[in-house]
Amino acid sequence: MQTIFSERHEGHAGQLELISGQLVPGFEKPERARFIRARIDAVGLGPVSAPETHSLDAARRVHRDDFVDFLPQAWPMWEASGRTNPTVPFAFPIRGLRADKRPTSIDALLGYYGFDAGVSFVKGTWDAVKSSYDTALTAASLIDGNTRSAFALCRPPGHHAGSAFMGGYCYLNNAAIVAQRYRDQGAARVAILDVDYHHGNGTQEIFYHRGDVAVFNLHADPNEEYPYFLGHADERGAGEGEGFNHNYPMPAGTPFAIWSEALDDACRKIADYAPDVVVVSLGVDTFEKDPISEFKLTTADYPKIGARIAQLGLPTLFVMEGGYAVEEIGVNAVGVLTGFEGA
Amino acid sequence: MQTIFSERHEGHAGQLELISGQLVPGFEKPERARFIRARIDAVGLGPVSAPETHSLDAARRVHRDDFVDFLPQAWPMWEASGRTNPTVPFAFPIRGLRADKRPTSIDALLGYYGFDAGVSFVKGTWDAVKSSYDTALTAASLIDGNTRSAFALCRPPGHHAGSAFMGGYCYLNNAAIVAQRYRDQGAARVAILDVDYHHGNGTQEIFYHRGDVAVFNLHADPNEEYPYFLGHADERGAGEGEGFNHNYPMPAGTPFAIWSEALDDACRKIADYAPDVVVVSLGVDTFEKDPISEFKLTTADYPKIGARIAQLGLPTLFVMEGGYAVEEIGVNAVGVLTGFEGA
Repeated sequence: MQTIFSERHEGHAGQLELISGQLVPGFEKPERARFIRARIDAVGLGPVSAPETHSLDAARRVHRDDFVDFLPQAWPMWEASGRTNPTVPFAFPIRGLRADKRPTSIDALLGYYGFDAGVSFVKGTWDAVKSSYDTALTAASLIDGNTRSAFALCRPPGHHAGSAFMGGYCYLNNAAIVAQRYRDQGAARVAILDVDYHHGNGTQEIFYHRGDVAVFNLHADPNEEYPYFLGHADERGAGEGEGFNHNYPMPAGTPFAIWSEALDDACRKIADYAPDVVVVSLGVDTFEKDPISEFKLTTADYPKIGARIAQLGLPTLFVMEGGYAVEEIGVNAVGVLTGFEGA
Repeated sequence: MQTIFSERHEGHAGQLELISGQLVPGFEKPERARFIRARIDAVGLGPVSAPETHSLDAARRVHRDDFVDFLPQAWPMWEASGRTNPTVPFAFPIRGLRADKRPTSIDALLGYYGFDAGVSFVKGTWDAVKSSYDTALTAASLIDGNTRSAFALCRPPGHHAGSAFMGGYCYLNNAAIVAQRYRDQGAARVAILDVDYHHGNGTQEIFYHRGDVAVFNLHADPNEEYPYFLGHADERGAGEGEGFNHNYPMPAGTPFAIWSEALDDACRKIADYAPDVVVVSLGVDTFEKDPISEFKLTTADYPKIGARIAQLGLPTLFVMEGGYAVEEIGVNAVGVLTGFEGA
């Protein structure tokens, strides 16, 4: 399997997040991608190439223009206000407050477009986000009649980013962007299968009213786990999207034996949906040793995930999302890919 | 003028806030109330009494039941989850996310009910919030045919707290609660005049659809200044409240000469409205040396504010809100009160 990867993710480092009442270094750090990159060579997964540069047009197909315009401006505006420490949003337009009026100050805009205090900018953030976007689009273009799979080693991840919001370490929604790209290039239907521990709230929000991109999410129960405010089983899509959003919330402590039943069910529904292509939001924070997650999957389980997805027999693009047990992230993420290849 | 004050505010200390990308000790600290309390004696404003205890029924008249129920539970739930550091919310249900589904975990609830990372709980927070609420209600009861004014030395403040949200150092909206109390006791109309530097977004949200409590807000332009997502001049009320919400946003650097024109206009409109009682949300963070604000009022200006309000000739309850230049907060806040008394 071919991988697309950019070293430019390295510039997104030293950012912060607020968790458990404390401001701490981001769990989403450069070592994550380094370990995955190293594991690709170690197991001989296949060639690794740098992405081509893309315009932001593909981002504007799923994100609001003002949001796409904001992302590259965030750090320059912050610096222009006399600060060089990492940004952290602190005030948010929740229910009862105005979402229709875009404020002007950078402090306000960070919260206007953010939904949590875990989406931080440093000087290199936008360049990394852009490289992650380029990585996804370049990897997407690899899949054609002859090539059935590819791996977009994206960092930062994307699945928490919605049409006009960022959060959960995510800025642009790489998986949603490539799903839309496939549609724009002629695919009749695309399925997104999100196996990250956390609900892909951004992906759901983007496609919630559409039936041409079906979204399948396996994740921790949002009553108890981040991102909290989306991901319940009763969220089935709306309008033309009715019945095309599938959530599988699971409790803390869920082992592979239970988790894999949800994967089976999702895969059966994907087969019924008969998409032209499957985009996998590949998070491996379902791992038992993940520092911020509570599922109990083991390293031996990840190849089985890849093998089950391969059984669909569909063109499949893997897009990297979460996973914070950095020492094992390479083995687990690449384990999914080798499991897919070997199936 | 009689003051109601509770020493129990002291328990709300050591809380944190996120500002400018940094987690710092709250600017809203016990010294604020101490300086005001001391100044009352220094100038002989009048007697100071402790509040009587009230049930939470009056809070439930303007706040949603589940929100009122949550506030005393926040710290016990946090402790039960094994933590004793100050809480800070970190994830929020903005547009596109669900506001109708109350999550169960304490980490989620802090953000479900908060709109910023500046509303922190410590062990003594609820007791202080309750004492601040009792202070407002007890002070409100002092005003009758013979007594035309009283001072509720509340801490923590309240005007950023909405029907079901907390934020900006505020948990229960003391001014809104007493305004409603006056209505429930027979007042036909109540005016709330908010002179705090920051827009009283909670107060506006609570009464936005009502004509029986008119709200007048003088504050910094929300495009540039906290709380950002409410407080524009075009917010005039809605439904039965149409025309009863009055916002006076002003730019950074506004001096008293300009600010007092807005106060004059608001007072003329209050006179036209002919309320039975005026509730003043008294913030003195309009002061030129305030560490987190940008207006240019001087200590000499504060008695003039009190005198202008006194010209209305209406029963007036002063409820303490913001002001973070702690060394001068007593002189400035009590300056408003002596200005009122001397008019």
